Amino acid sequence: MKIIGIDAGGTSFKVLVIDGSDGIVARNRVATTSPQETLGEVAQWIDCQKSEHPDIAAIGIASFGPIDRDPASPDWGRIGVTTKDGWEGANPRRALAQSSGLPCALETDVNAALLGECELGAGLGLSDAAYLTIGTGVGGAALVDGALVGAPWHGEFGHVRLRREPSDIAAFAGSCTFHGDCVEGIASATAIRSRWKAQPHELPDDHECWVEVSSALAQLCHAIACLVAPQRIILGGGLMLRDSLLARIRSDFDAVVGGYASRPEVLDASTYIVRAGLGDDAGAIGGAAVARHHLAVTGGVNA
Amino acid sequence: MKIIGIDAGGTSFKVLVIDGSDGIVARNRVATTSPQETLGEVAQWIDCQKSEHPDIAAIGIASFGPIDRDPASPDWGRIGVTTKDGWEGANPRRALAQSSGLPCALETDVNAALLGECELGAGLGLSDAAYLTIGTGVGGAALVDGALVGAPWHGEFGHVRLRREPSDIAAFAGSCTFHGDCVEGIASATAIRSRWKAQPHELPDDHECWVEVSSALAQLCHAIACLVAPQRIILGGGLMLRDSLLARIRSDFDAVVGGYASRPEVLDASTYIVRAGLGDDAGAIGGAAVARHHLAVTGGVNA
Repeated sequence: MKIIGIDAGGTSFKVLVIDGSDGIVARNRVATTSPQETLGEVAQWIDCQKSEHPDIAAIGIASFGPIDRDPASPDWGRIGVTTKDGWEGANPRRALAQSSGLPCALETDVNAALLGECELGAGLGLSDAAYLTIGTGVGGAALVDGALVGAPWHGEFGHVRLRREPSDIAAFAGSCTFHGDCVEGIASATAIRSRWKAQPHELPDDHECWVEVSSALAQLCHAIACLVAPQRIILGGGLMLRDSLLARIRSDFDAVVGGYASRPEVLDASTYIVRAGLGDDAGAIGGAAVARHHLAVTGGVNA
Repeated sequence: MKIIGIDAGGTSFKVLVIDGSDGIVARNRVATTSPQETLGEVAQWIDCQKSEHPDIAAIGIASFGPIDRDPASPDWGRIGVTTKDGWEGANPRRALAQSSGLPCALETDVNAALLGECELGAGLGLSDAAYLTIGTGVGGAALVDGALVGAPWHGEFGHVRLRREPSDIAAFAGSCTFHGDCVEGIASATAIRSRWKAQPHELPDDHECWVEVSSALAQLCHAIACLVAPQRIILGGGLMLRDSLLARIRSDFDAVVGGYASRPEVLDASTYIVRAGLGDDAGAIGGAAVARHHLAVTGGVNA
């Protein structure tokens, strides 16, 4: 059985045909312009793939948001208020289901990434896992006994409040429009650019910025361990490409935990907090995982 | 069908016979002395009830801890290291299952309270809910799509870290042995007694202590809303008997949320944060809910 996985991003749609045993058997990338043009081009490519691979069983989309992620909603897949010109009100899930005649499932990009990691990546086989992406913003997702938290809505992992050093509070009010210095307002690439007037990748490993970024992310991981108590926390996103940041977060996390946890996995950050295992294809693989997740849960999805 | 619900506490075991339609049809209370004596007395009373009510189908226990709460463990129900003399290694679940011949399920007292609230109390019918108990300590539990978080372990809701005012930090380091000024170290009755040298019920509604207690609990509720995104948060425990505290927490919560949430319920604290609905019988009713929960999930529980 093959699945089409789509990473629907603000810059481009990446589309993969994934075979359960052979992995990725075809790939394409389509620029995100207007819904008509982009979805039309994706639909056309899927049509070609269907004639070449008649065992394609479903489509799964990992989508930028905000989206209606409720499979029970008549508007499942509809994009809400967005700065992305022309996309408000578009429904990539419905459009591709109708054009292809295939069942088509959709999730937020972060939820999809977590499902992908639990199917093929750093959370292989876990029923209880959390995922954070640290890039332009900070987002997250968690599975409890195989179910995504917050359905039919989602969590706001990046907006947890932090304890900060008084000198940091005095120096920087944070970049979050809603909360100032929540996790996203301190530890995202946007926050780093705003406070240090530099791109994160330009700042060396020993730059002072990483002290507070690491503290913020370790505090967020600790709140997740306290409230969701997953088996593992997986970190992805552009900022996590830096090895020294992962090492700092683990060290800060051990200090915040203070040797106290019910779940024993929490007590060793070196195995509890890990880097995402799927690379550039994570979004599209996550999309395919969404399709399989919905096929497993519902035994099929409506077009 | 009738269920026996047991609130296994450090001071006494409260035992109820609960009928699905008629409510509580019998009750008893046994002092917590030694496991042999207490469990023997409870077993004897259950024996009498069984002859009077032959349709008793199961026993459910809400237990003090630490306990092994894993139904798949050979030691399900075993009490771990505890200051309660003689109880370490005791297994109330196995003892009562064997003496009664009935299926017997067990959960932590906090998990059981949440299941009880969702069955008969302030979370009636919810699949996604969180519960906090604020008393000697601060504990919590959450359901995601009907599953308790952290299985087969549990969360540590009281140990989330807080943002505090510098003047508070200078005045009080917190009472938590592990973390100092985590939520439990600031907002529990133990913390209030330690900082203000008074019993919480002696302090008037306008005492300054409630400002930080409310801030701590509102921050914890916000972290729960961000990371678990339940449909409702239910507050119980001795400190929540004070009306003005609930009002303060709601007001502080609205301020922390800052109008930003995916789940719309979060945006109105007056309906999102509610008081527990079950009174003195909450523990035992929770125990009965645990039995029904396990009967529903597993179709029966092992003796």
